[in-house]
Amino acid sequence: MSGGLPEDQRLLWVTFLPDGRAAEVSPGSTLLAAARLASVPIASVCGGEGICGRCRVLVRSGRVETSPTPLLSPEEWRAGYVLACQARVKEEDVVVEVPPESRTSEIWGTETLPEIESSGLFRLSPLVRKIFLALPRPTLEDNAGDQERLFREIRKKADVSELLAELQVLREWPALLRSARWQVTATLAQKDQVVEVLQLEPQDRSREALGVAVDVGTSTVVAHLLHLGTGKTLDTEAKYNSQRVHGAEVTRRILAAERLGVEKLQSLVVADINDLISHMVERQGISLSDVLGVVCAGNTAMTHFLLGLPPGALRRYPYVAAAVAPPAVRAAEVGIRINPQGLLWVVPGIGGWVGGDITAGLLASAVHRSKDLVLFVDIGTNGEVVLGGQDWLVACSTSAGPAFEGAGVTSGVRAGPGAIHRVEFTPQGPVFHVLGDGLAQGLCGSGLIDAIAGLFRIGYLDRSGRLSPQAENVLEHNGDLAFLLAPKGRAARDILITQRDIANVLRAKAAIYAGITVLLKETGVALKDVRWLYIAGAFGSHLDPRNAITLGLIPDFPAERVRFWGNTSLAGAKLCLLSQQAWEEARRLAARVTYYDLGSCPYYYEEFLGALFLPHTDLSRFPSVVAGEKL
Amino acid sequence: MSGGLPEDQRLLWVTFLPDGRAAEVSPGSTLLAAARLASVPIASVCGGEGICGRCRVLVRSGRVETSPTPLLSPEEWRAGYVLACQARVKEEDVVVEVPPESRTSEIWGTETLPEIESSGLFRLSPLVRKIFLALPRPTLEDNAGDQERLFREIRKKADVSELLAELQVLREWPALLRSARWQVTATLAQKDQVVEVLQLEPQDRSREALGVAVDVGTSTVVAHLLHLGTGKTLDTEAKYNSQRVHGAEVTRRILAAERLGVEKLQSLVVADINDLISHMVERQGISLSDVLGVVCAGNTAMTHFLLGLPPGALRRYPYVAAAVAPPAVRAAEVGIRINPQGLLWVVPGIGGWVGGDITAGLLASAVHRSKDLVLFVDIGTNGEVVLGGQDWLVACSTSAGPAFEGAGVTSGVRAGPGAIHRVEFTPQGPVFHVLGDGLAQGLCGSGLIDAIAGLFRIGYLDRSGRLSPQAENVLEHNGDLAFLLAPKGRAARDILITQRDIANVLRAKAAIYAGITVLLKETGVALKDVRWLYIAGAFGSHLDPRNAITLGLIPDFPAERVRFWGNTSLAGAKLCLLSQQAWEEARRLAARVTYYDLGSCPYYYEEFLGALFLPHTDLSRFPSVVAGEKL
Repeated sequence: MSGGLPEDQRLLWVTFLPDGRAAEVSPGSTLLAAARLASVPIASVCGGEGICGRCRVLVRSGRVETSPTPLLSPEEWRAGYVLACQARVKEEDVVVEVPPESRTSEIWGTETLPEIESSGLFRLSPLVRKIFLALPRPTLEDNAGDQERLFREIRKKADVSELLAELQVLREWPALLRSARWQVTATLAQKDQVVEVLQLEPQDRSREALGVAVDVGTSTVVAHLLHLGTGKTLDTEAKYNSQRVHGAEVTRRILAAERLGVEKLQSLVVADINDLISHMVERQGISLSDVLGVVCAGNTAMTHFLLGLPPGALRRYPYVAAAVAPPAVRAAEVGIRINPQGLLWVVPGIGGWVGGDITAGLLASAVHRSKDLVLFVDIGTNGEVVLGGQDWLVACSTSAGPAFEGAGVTSGVRAGPGAIHRVEFTPQGPVFHVLGDGLAQGLCGSGLIDAIAGLFRIGYLDRSGRLSPQAENVLEHNGDLAFLLAPKGRAARDILITQRDIANVLRAKAAIYAGITVLLKETGVALKDVRWLYIAGAFGSHLDPRNAITLGLIPDFPAERVRFWGNTSLAGAKLCLLSQQAWEEARRLAARVTYYDLGSCPYYYEEFLGALFLPHTDLSRFPSVVAGEKL
Repeated sequence: MSGGLPEDQRLLWVTFLPDGRAAEVSPGSTLLAAARLASVPIASVCGGEGICGRCRVLVRSGRVETSPTPLLSPEEWRAGYVLACQARVKEEDVVVEVPPESRTSEIWGTETLPEIESSGLFRLSPLVRKIFLALPRPTLEDNAGDQERLFREIRKKADVSELLAELQVLREWPALLRSARWQVTATLAQKDQVVEVLQLEPQDRSREALGVAVDVGTSTVVAHLLHLGTGKTLDTEAKYNSQRVHGAEVTRRILAAERLGVEKLQSLVVADINDLISHMVERQGISLSDVLGVVCAGNTAMTHFLLGLPPGALRRYPYVAAAVAPPAVRAAEVGIRINPQGLLWVVPGIGGWVGGDITAGLLASAVHRSKDLVLFVDIGTNGEVVLGGQDWLVACSTSAGPAFEGAGVTSGVRAGPGAIHRVEFTPQGPVFHVLGDGLAQGLCGSGLIDAIAGLFRIGYLDRSGRLSPQAENVLEHNGDLAFLLAPKGRAARDILITQRDIANVLRAKAAIYAGITVLLKETGVALKDVRWLYIAGAFGSHLDPRNAITLGLIPDFPAERVRFWGNTSLAGAKLCLLSQQAWEEARRLAARVTYYDLGSCPYYYEEFLGALFLPHTDLSRFPSVVAGEKL
């Protein structure tokens, strides 16, 4: 991987136990940065300052550079404990164990995101930012207009070419500049090829610059509040997309938009985004007027709803978007409540059925820069599959349904506090892990996959996914068979997996698996020639790859070459918000991907039917499952 | 002048009698084009098609290329008559006489403007235009989004880089494209560095593209309606600026804006512009929605009023504009009623007291490209003086007052139908020429200059401008002495020139002359080193240079090196509207000019006082007047 790089640029592997997840980082990177890159959730309250002592980890092999600290006892120090934020890799690969107490409280989503400073790919240069300016007072010799004086001084401090301000904003400047005695803070936003001065404020308010990145999912909307001066994530919020009342799947929503007007669906998702933002802003005690921009990533239908673009042509052959790369607009124009001058950017998509969420995902996981072939699978309500690397990229989209997001299944919940995200079947019965402190509320996607794969493995399910009525804890529920994972009492309510739920999950996994198979066939790529299998999706970091393979959701692939990226749609949106380079790269990248329409593939349906079994009709495709489960 | 050019690019002089005005044109140019360039008004009803026969002229020397036409009799043909629109210069300079019957009916202003096609400097490439597109229908192989398909096809037909559309416009495209069966006309507007698609229309409406150029003068507002596909002027209108109720001069208006709010002054001038546009549009039987853009040129205060920018700092040291180069805005944003998506561009200015009208003037008269030193004087309510050429340009501004625009003088009128634009004193008494067919309504600027110079020449006025009470037709009028040029009956009313009017004119001319003198001194340029004296202003083409010199308005300068350009503010605005190159050149040009503040010149007032005489206290500066009038 890094053999081709000069010695001083050689990357080092940091592997984290017990997960076995790993990341390649530059020499000098901290273990905390490596953990973020590897999607390993390590607690850090102080933000990496070496003050809180929460991020202690145990170095198992390899040398790191660090200094003694009173936060570690002499015994811990001798045992090999270090603070992840203060220990840096220098010359060799290292293996680090993360003790349970150093794991985060698993605020859903946050831990999986590559931060701009640790991604190493992009410079912090947000799409919107504030700069403080001490302008020289006008004189007869230097009597440039107020606008021209401001633009001139901005150009001296920032690398901008064309500058622009709206008339209504310009009108306020003469009075403001003079009352502020020419000491002002300008808010600059990248708008197409032009930089717009959104506002002027008196004095130095350059630190009060915040932005929001949003993953507008079909089922779930997730928002992160970012400090644009430091690139740090201040807060996170998520909720189900309120459009769900108009259908769980994209096509039903488009029909609803055609029937009721797209404004109806727009207002629902805008209200969701406003909810998320206002919660974060309130909690952080900041002013909405300091939130200067929002970057949203979503599939093409979601961005049409968000912007109020007519989505009708998306569901009709040949599935054409109104706009794949919509313009930056005033956030207020669509009803998003931030600074009234603040902008909304939508990450450009690839085509009618492969949206900006995938552009963002490829950007965040750097598939488009990979020298090796990567198979990128984003598991959400749509399951998008992208194959390729730095030379070419082909994408397709499957309609998986919302089961993996905990929707449309009896005991499904979003991957958040109260969600069972991991299930193991022990001889003593099922054991499950719940996010957060409270009682289990239900199963999220990864828990559901664990549970169904486990039920299959212990023989409660046959290969067609039928529950055995004789099996323990299998009971009748509303005229259907169901497995009772946990009764009310051990959980907040009965946690059930019904026969119908299983059928839902099988249809979802079959759609994605068939998509993968067709894309490999159509590009003439053998699975063995794929170097990396990247899994993206909200549950990404909680998923057990062995169970995903047993389920037949992903092909039988060596676990060490599977990487989990978490919510890459959100991660890419954050990169875009924090870096103009990333935004430009997303634009170019989106234009490079070729869309392949599964609907026009003559054998897709056949592949789908073959994949409706556990793990598949054709067992020769899953030798590891056959060997492991002795089928 | 043209000695340095290769032979095939050598320019030829065409001189027109009786005016003696001349223009340099490329071989192959028609006499009509040369006449337009020389500001010689030649009638042409058919638009240069050789059909109407109105433009017959007599070739006095030099050879032209033309063909016999039934519109000329054999006698006329033998005598040397040709149709100006069908005769082309080939190899030598020519002298042409324009018989009175071939002069236009002198619609005020039109005849003086260089048309884009005859200017030869710029290509027709309007700031806003329509193009017809037959888009390929989407297929699975070509399933670009509607916006991306449209942008792609626009790029194939037009040289544009970054394209953009507003969200509300984008929203209409999917339905429109499909109902129009992908045959649409796109309206493209140059907005900063981006091209905005203002609207789509079904079918081919590419010929329905109109724009308006406006000279927003302190005293007068003039508008021309242009066909953007051909560059032709379709109609013209002018009226006094309604802001005059708040003062004749700029400073009084700024005070009014500070007292009443700038919106008050904005609404007045916007109403004027709307009046002018609606008259032209009604007369031409076209739809307002086909008027796609407006380019305005005006002094800095006028553009502040127009855009609603606070003008207060303009009148306070160091005289700073809110914006010298304001952004293009939606015309509707300031209340201008054209196509609701149509744009308003304001020609960028030079500084607080030298505005976009002067940028436009320099552009139209190509001062900034001149290898020779040019002294450019724009005579309006402000008198701006620019000295320089291709290497450097210095500008200053004098407050002349509105006398030369026919305002603030007893019998003053705007240079339009009914205006006395020329006065001669013959032994039989004064003879005057009236624009249009009707009775004289009053004196416009050129008539006033002729009259005062004439009165001085015949001894009715002394050198300090005092009327002799004994002189014929000098009478008392409202306690003041006045010369009765024409009694009611010979004119629509008594046409009087009062002692106070004369004092007004002397103050105006003294301000301008003093500005010229100071600028020459400060740049160390001797008058003899100035190659050309360019006179701009609404009356430009009617002014007698000998009288302007006798009055002491302009320095004593050889008449053959004085050129009259007419309303160059309007001419430059038209060039900008019709040519993106011209617009870009105006932007660059404006940034090149150095502003010189007369207010900070210690001897300006002394120069002003010395110039309050006829022609000047210091007669040695006006040897030709001394010789001619035997003073």
